[in-house]
Amino acid sequence: MEYQTPQFFRLMQYAAAAERDVVELVSGGPDWNAPPAIGEGLHEFADLDGNDYQYPPSAGLADLREEIAARRGVAIENVVVTNGAGEANSLALAAALDRDAGTEVLLTDPVYPYYPGKTQLFGGVPRYVPVDADGSLDPAAVRERASDETAAIVVNTPNNPTGAVYDEETMAELVEIAAAHDAILVSDEVYDHFDYTGEFASALAVDSPHRIVTNAFSKSMAITGFRVGYGVFPDELVDGVRSRHMLVNVAGSRPAQYAVLRALRGTGPEYYERNRERLVRRIDGFTDALDDTGAEYTAPDGGFYVMARFPEFPGTMKNAERLVDEAGVAAMPGETFGEARADWFRFALVSPEIETAGRRLVDFFG
Amino acid sequence: MEYQTPQFFRLMQYAAAAERDVVELVSGGPDWNAPPAIGEGLHEFADLDGNDYQYPPSAGLADLREEIAARRGVAIENVVVTNGAGEANSLALAAALDRDAGTEVLLTDPVYPYYPGKTQLFGGVPRYVPVDADGSLDPAAVRERASDETAAIVVNTPNNPTGAVYDEETMAELVEIAAAHDAILVSDEVYDHFDYTGEFASALAVDSPHRIVTNAFSKSMAITGFRVGYGVFPDELVDGVRSRHMLVNVAGSRPAQYAVLRALRGTGPEYYERNRERLVRRIDGFTDALDDTGAEYTAPDGGFYVMARFPEFPGTMKNAERLVDEAGVAAMPGETFGEARADWFRFALVSPEIETAGRRLVDFFG
Repeated sequence: MEYQTPQFFRLMQYAAAAERDVVELVSGGPDWNAPPAIGEGLHEFADLDGNDYQYPPSAGLADLREEIAARRGVAIENVVVTNGAGEANSLALAAALDRDAGTEVLLTDPVYPYYPGKTQLFGGVPRYVPVDADGSLDPAAVRERASDETAAIVVNTPNNPTGAVYDEETMAELVEIAAAHDAILVSDEVYDHFDYTGEFASALAVDSPHRIVTNAFSKSMAITGFRVGYGVFPDELVDGVRSRHMLVNVAGSRPAQYAVLRALRGTGPEYYERNRERLVRRIDGFTDALDDTGAEYTAPDGGFYVMARFPEFPGTMKNAERLVDEAGVAAMPGETFGEARADWFRFALVSPEIETAGRRLVDFFG
Repeated sequence: MEYQTPQFFRLMQYAAAAERDVVELVSGGPDWNAPPAIGEGLHEFADLDGNDYQYPPSAGLADLREEIAARRGVAIENVVVTNGAGEANSLALAAALDRDAGTEVLLTDPVYPYYPGKTQLFGGVPRYVPVDADGSLDPAAVRERASDETAAIVVNTPNNPTGAVYDEETMAELVEIAAAHDAILVSDEVYDHFDYTGEFASALAVDSPHRIVTNAFSKSMAITGFRVGYGVFPDELVDGVRSRHMLVNVAGSRPAQYAVLRALRGTGPEYYERNRERLVRRIDGFTDALDDTGAEYTAPDGGFYVMARFPEFPGTMKNAERLVDEAGVAAMPGETFGEARADWFRFALVSPEIETAGRRLVDFFG
């Protein structure tokens, strides 16, 4: 496999090297603080030493798995704590493809670029289902492309990059399509704490051996660097998943797991509410600015991202570099996410300088 | 792939459930403390928050990679920081097997059980080279079994479970054999700080595109639960390795990397010397006791482990359970490590109760 410097990394380097001041709306790491219990948990852990510094159980600290299982209403045996949602999604795709029940993986277009990369790493072939103009996914479009060659259907709700949130009916139908073709629905729900509609439905609502749910504390607790995530895997797959996890990583990092456990127990709903409110304000302000640029966009129902299309300014890497140099705003070119949104840009609203970015875009396009 | 509860885990559960007091010499997690700079580093990190809690570079914190590269005398570009030696070995085997230069992986017998598991996970076929009676590996035996079907040769020095340390000549010859068959020597050197002979030689001493060196801070800093390791990969392989690492794990855990960096900078040689001295004392005491049991053994040249064979008491799981129940000592059955040492037991000398274990074995066998 060839290593390609990921596009987001190239663009961030380009923005950092620019001579002018640039508002960086590329990366998806929150710019707000973690819940205080994260730092408190790390301080506590730092004072332990000895046995507590040694291997945690491979599937994760028992108390952390229990806490997750209780919150998600699943059995502890089905929970595997992973090195972020990244590993959880890898384990999910490997498990779906290891079943010898097809090699095709249905992805959406636009797509989070890691999914096709992982699909290929584990021997699968990506096939794309275009989403609707507003970013929503029509289960009928998925049904049309699903076949007995389908090993997995991968969705992300709330969605990166479109901001779509899939409702309960959609999720149930996606699980049903997966089951009809002996495939696995992989639902990556890492933005679940950033639902602005109340419509978000986890795939866990449907009990089925044909669905895997992945998640992480990376976004909800603003700790993308800690690498603590998890997957909820059906009985039929969880043993194989644990085996692969153990063979590849042995276990996840214990200080990070300890801090997350502490923060799960010590963080009230107001922390998450405050972050949602901040993002809603940013989305409102930023989309108001987009109105003044003449851009087409959809206000996101969830997550961190706004996609926008500007007149006669397609979302190429070349134009992304122009935006850096001429507008002082760095945004991901839509072509990175597939063909359907090649004309668009994605703005990650995780910067304190969203207002500046909006003004600069108005100046540039207005 | 079937998930099998690893034998060590089964045995530890059995020992924990025993009605009598049991000295647990099964697991390989150090029983001494980490260098103080580890805890200090975690405290420092805990107070950072914000941006510092977000994604580190995928290949590891730049300062940590630089520190490793400088200490090992290699270029920073060839260093990838991993989720412990476990991930480093996985990346190494996957890289060796992805080259389409054979599917056979030469392993030693006895073998660290993770290696055959990883080999099979990445589509390789394990083939075993028996070691000599004293645990040393004769390169001629490796040469005899190597062929153009050989993708990798995996060695561990100082060795788990035999305690052998391979000298410079052996390492050079192993690299040369790998090169002659377009294969990769993977040298897992995670016990490199526990060499009691002065003979240890890293495979890094030989500059070749046919060798990968893996390592971790797990054992040397007594932080097996932190999951910070690294691999040194040749130019030809490092891009593919980085790609797989990014697709599977995104990055390692930042609090743990930060603490390790702090400890690398703030820990003097006396910390490592003290741990070596403690182990030498334990080995001396324990092998004295073994003399009184009538056991055959080789005093280890490096690492944590002593293998011993008792008269008419082969190293089966059944006998390991008898040792727990009747002697009050838990040790790994030799059959776990392959065929060559199926009659032996492995004792991990990472417990403060080594003397008690020795006395109990004398009582039981004497």
